[in-house]
Amino acid sequence: MSVLYDRPVRFEDVDAANIVFFGRFSNYCHEAMESFFNTLEGGYVGLITKRRIGFPAVHMVADWKSPLRYGDVAEIETSVTKIGTTSITFRYVFTRKADRVHAATIEITTVSTNLAAMVKTALPDDCRKLLELHRARA
Amino acid sequence: MSVLYDRPVRFEDVDAANIVFFGRFSNYCHEAMESFFNTLEGGYVGLITKRRIGFPAVHMVADWKSPLRYGDVAEIETSVTKIGTTSITFRYVFTRKADRVHAATIEITTVSTNLAAMVKTALPDDCRKLLELHRARA
Amino acid sequence: MSVLYDRPVRFEDVDAANIVFFGRFSNYCHEAMESFFNTLEGGYVGLITKRRIGFPAVHMVADWKSPLRYGDVAEIETSVTKIGTTSITFRYVFTRKADRVHAATIEITTVSTNLAAMVKTALPDDCRKLLELHRARA
Amino acid sequence: MSVLYDRPVRFEDVDAANIVFFGRFSNYCHEAMESFFNTLEGGYVGLITKRRIGFPAVHMVADWKSPLRYGDVAEIETSVTKIGTTSITFRYVFTRKADRVHAATIEITTVSTNLAAMVKTALPDDCRKLLELHRARA
Repeated sequence: MSVLYDRPVRFEDVDAANIVFFGRFSNYCHEAMESFFNTLEGGYVGLITKRRIGFPAVHMVADWKSPLRYGDVAEIETSVTKIGTTSITFRYVFTRKADRVHAATIEITTVSTNLAAMVKTALPDDCRKLLELHRARA
Repeated sequence: MSVLYDRPVRFEDVDAANIVFFGRFSNYCHEAMESFFNTLEGGYVGLITKRRIGFPAVHMVADWKSPLRYGDVAEIETSVTKIGTTSITFRYVFTRKADRVHAATIEITTVSTNLAAMVKTALPDDCRKLLELHRARA
Repeated sequence: MSVLYDRPVRFEDVDAANIVFFGRFSNYCHEAMESFFNTLEGGYVGLITKRRIGFPAVHMVADWKSPLRYGDVAEIETSVTKIGTTSITFRYVFTRKADRVHAATIEITTVSTNLAAMVKTALPDDCRKLLELHRARA
Repeated sequence: MSVLYDRPVRFEDVDAANIVFFGRFSNYCHEAMESFFNTLEGGYVGLITKRRIGFPAVHMVADWKSPLRYGDVAEIETSVTKIGTTSITFRYVFTRKADRVHAATIEITTVSTNLAAMVKTALPDDCRKLLELHRARA
């Protein structure tokens, strides 16, 4: 079961070629991930600021298919493709909402990290449960 | 005596109107300020990360005169217009380098702050000396 | 009658002092302005991309009172303090939502601009009507 | 023969975990690419604004190994791993300059694009020559 997040392209998200700068897609993915954790007690904010656990990216594979422009809304479908002891792989599928064109697919692997010590830490149980709910079907 | 800092406009600094987004000028000012403190032992980085003193902005007045575009270089002239017990006012004059057109003038007042406690703190002596050197003439 | 826009602080909106970077407030103001024009036919996007009219900033006065951090939500109250032939002054009052602390007040004057020619143009009637509705009381 | 580009981490490049936001590495790569084209007549700016040719990203693979923090300088080594009829693959190797630690390796494939029509176009000869000079050794 995937989770949807709508992200309107903002005025300053484009570049000198007048399309959304490719680097912005990472920001959009992170927003979609934060939104994914909304149902977790305290949300992603609580993880970072209270429990001092974060999920820094260690690997990313991105494929861009069609540009997004100012005025477009990106519909981002988030699912989970792998859950390890400390690592999670998220998949983000971007659809241009108005015409349902596939804009991009991005997979990001993150590692559950104790932010105080900056070392790997086992994925907390409540996170794991939430992640299992949204595992992508094979 | 003012300090010059050249900042080429980057590909992703523009907005959907194809000119540098007005908010980016704040980033350019901050870079010019960081560069201003380069001759301080440890630089601005040392202030923030080692001495845990920062200069958050409390007041800003900006006037934009001419747009900057991708390919332009902004020449930023930094000077100091006021030095108080804890506050500093910087003036940044932006010139479009190729044609010497005045692009913007921005004044930012910052307050010397203990970042651990987030309370005002007296301006350190070495900072004060450097600031005095670059005071704008009346 | 003012318009409210809620903006959660995002993960990458903070700086090395761990508070929202002062320049980001300009982005937040612009988002609040885009949201302000939502009830206009075609919205701000239509103005920019179809009618080729934009409102570049020419003047800004900002006062920061209290910092925002990751996890805070900024409640931004937008109103209009001046409407000229071609210029508009917007006022944005930022409140930290959880504790109702006043975070900042920012006034931005923009000029109605023909983006193709980059020259001033009279404020369109539908914009003027909408702006009048949200004029700040004296 | 690779090309080196030094990029100091800036104050606002970090995130709420106090390390450089992973999405910023895309910006750093783009800067390194712009710098790579500096020896081209008119530079990357000329390509985009005069010749209306750009190199939008279509594929990216990133591996992050060690975090960068405010105060670090990223040394970015740019080389070219593939040159096709219309596509180029760049490799960016990030080294944390102070301690020579490997921070990240990112490969980005771009497609030579006519920005007016947003269609593929053959790689211009002067670009191809420059790219061949910096081809990564097998």
